[in-house]
Amino acid sequence: MRTEFRTKRQIEFSDVDLAGFVHFSRFLIFMESAEHQFLRSLGTSVHTRIDGKDIGWPRLKVTCEYFSPAHFEDVLDIHLTVIKKGRKSMTYQITFKRGKDLIARGEVKAACCIVDAGKKLRAIPIPEAIGRAVKSE
Amino acid sequence: MRTEFRTKRQIEFSDVDLAGFVHFSRFLIFMESAEHQFLRSLGTSVHTRIDGKDIGWPRLKVTCEYFSPAHFEDVLDIHLTVIKKGRKSMTYQITFKRGKDLIARGEVKAACCIVDAGKKLRAIPIPEAIGRAVKSE
Amino acid sequence: MRTEFRTKRQIEFSDVDLAGFVHFSRFLIFMESAEHQFLRSLGTSVHTRIDGKDIGWPRLKVTCEYFSPAHFEDVLDIHLTVIKKGRKSMTYQITFKRGKDLIARGEVKAACCIVDAGKKLRAIPIPEAIGRAVKSE
Amino acid sequence: MRTEFRTKRQIEFSDVDLAGFVHFSRFLIFMESAEHQFLRSLGTSVHTRIDGKDIGWPRLKVTCEYFSPAHFEDVLDIHLTVIKKGRKSMTYQITFKRGKDLIARGEVKAACCIVDAGKKLRAIPIPEAIGRAVKSE
Repeated sequence: MRTEFRTKRQIEFSDVDLAGFVHFSRFLIFMESAEHQFLRSLGTSVHTRIDGKDIGWPRLKVTCEYFSPAHFEDVLDIHLTVIKKGRKSMTYQITFKRGKDLIARGEVKAACCIVDAGKKLRAIPIPEAIGRAVKSE
Repeated sequence: MRTEFRTKRQIEFSDVDLAGFVHFSRFLIFMESAEHQFLRSLGTSVHTRIDGKDIGWPRLKVTCEYFSPAHFEDVLDIHLTVIKKGRKSMTYQITFKRGKDLIARGEVKAACCIVDAGKKLRAIPIPEAIGRAVKSE
Repeated sequence: MRTEFRTKRQIEFSDVDLAGFVHFSRFLIFMESAEHQFLRSLGTSVHTRIDGKDIGWPRLKVTCEYFSPAHFEDVLDIHLTVIKKGRKSMTYQITFKRGKDLIARGEVKAACCIVDAGKKLRAIPIPEAIGRAVKSE
Repeated sequence: MRTEFRTKRQIEFSDVDLAGFVHFSRFLIFMESAEHQFLRSLGTSVHTRIDGKDIGWPRLKVTCEYFSPAHFEDVLDIHLTVIKKGRKSMTYQITFKRGKDLIARGEVKAACCIVDAGKKLRAIPIPEAIGRAVKSE
C-alpha cells in the first residue's frame, strides 16, 4: 500500500513566462504528471480498462498556492501525498521544493469515472485493483 | 469604476485532451487571458511601466472547480468579477458557462509587484492609476 | 469555392517566452486554429463524421520560418491560402504579419484520414462535401 | 567535441490530443528540450551570459515530418545531430523513434543572438566557448 510518491522535474524553457518564472498553469501539468507517475508506480494508469470499461480521472477541483518563483533549468523536488481516498474520488496534495525553498503547493481532487466517448461521464466506486494499492494518510 | 468584465472564447483543438474534454489546466490560461482583457479595458495592462518600474501581477493562489466538461468548438461565456481589491493584491472570480450550463468557476489572487529581471519580486501597493479604475463587489 | 481565409489573433501572455517573444511552437497552434476556422467557414470541421466515419486531418509535415519576433498583446494578421489540394491531402500556407512587418510564414500538409480509436490511421480521398468547397491556388 | 546527443522522453497526458496522438506542436517542444539538454551537456545553456551579454538562440526555421503517431505513456528515443555549424547559426536534426518505429523527424535552425530586453535581436558569431565544443557532421 502506498500513500506517497516522490519525483523530480527539471524546468524547461517552454515552462517559463515573460517574467522569467515558471508559468502558474504549468504547476497543474506537473501535478498531473506526478499523479500519473504515482498511478504507474502502483501498476495502473490514469487511463485504463477494467471489465471492458474505460476508466478515467476527471478533475473536480484544483488549488495551487505559489510561494516563491521557479526558474528555467531549476530542478524541483515533487512530493505527492494521498490526503483522502474517497469511495469515488481521490485527493492528492503535491508539494514543489527547490532544495529547502518551498515553491508551490497544490491539491487535486479527481473522480473515478467511466469515460465513454460521446456519453456523459459517470462516477463509479474506485475499482478494487486501484483502491487496495492506495492508502490515504 | 469597473467591477466586472465579460468575454467569450471558442475552444481550440489544442485545448482539448485525450478524453475529448478541455484540459483542466487550460482554464487557468483562460482566466489569465480574461484578467488581461479586463485590465486592458481599464486602459492598463498586466505588464506595464509606472514611474520607471516594471509592474507585474504574479499569482499567489488559484482555485478552479470543474462542474461539466467543455468540448472542441464550444463557445464559452466568461464572466470575471473583482471579488476583493486589497492594498497590494487583487482577487478575481471567473465563471465559465456554455449557455445555461455551468462549466467551471475559478478564483485567482494576484499580487501587484515590481518585477526587476534578476531581482526578487517585491509587492507594492496597487498604483493609483489602476486602483481608482477598479471597484470590488 | 474558397481558396483563402483571413483572421486575426491577439498574443496572450502564455504565448510569450522568457525572451519576451512569442514561442516558436505557438505558431503551429495559430496555424492549426486558422485552418480550423477556415474549415468551419466552409461549413465543415476538422473533426467531422461523414458516412458514419470519424474524419480527421493528421499532419504529415509542417514548416515555419521566423522573420521578426512578435510580442505580448500584438495583434497578428493571419492569412491562410490553400496551396495544394491533393486527392488525399491538403497543403496550407499561413502568413503572419503585424501591420506591414512579416513575422512568420508556415506550411502545413495534412492528410484526410479515417480516425478510429484503437485502429491505425487510414488516408482516404477528401470527401466530396469538403473537396468541392475548396479551391487551391 | 560533440556532434550528437541522445535522450528519452515519456509522453505525458497533456502532450496528447483529442485523437489520442501526441499533438504535432509538442514535437517542437521536445526538439527544443533536446537541444537545451545538448547545450547543457557541453557545459553551456541556451540562455547564457558571455562577456556581460545575454546570449540566446532564436529560431530561424523549423521543419517537422510526422511518420507514425505516438501515444500517451510511450517512451520516445530522441536523437539530436548537429547537421550544420554556421558562423552565426546552428542547425540540428532531431529524430524520434519508439523502438524501431520512426515517429517524427525535424530540423531546427537557430541563430546565435544578443538578446537585450527592449532592443532588436542582433545575430553574432557563435562564441568560442560554445563553438569549439560542437562539431558538425
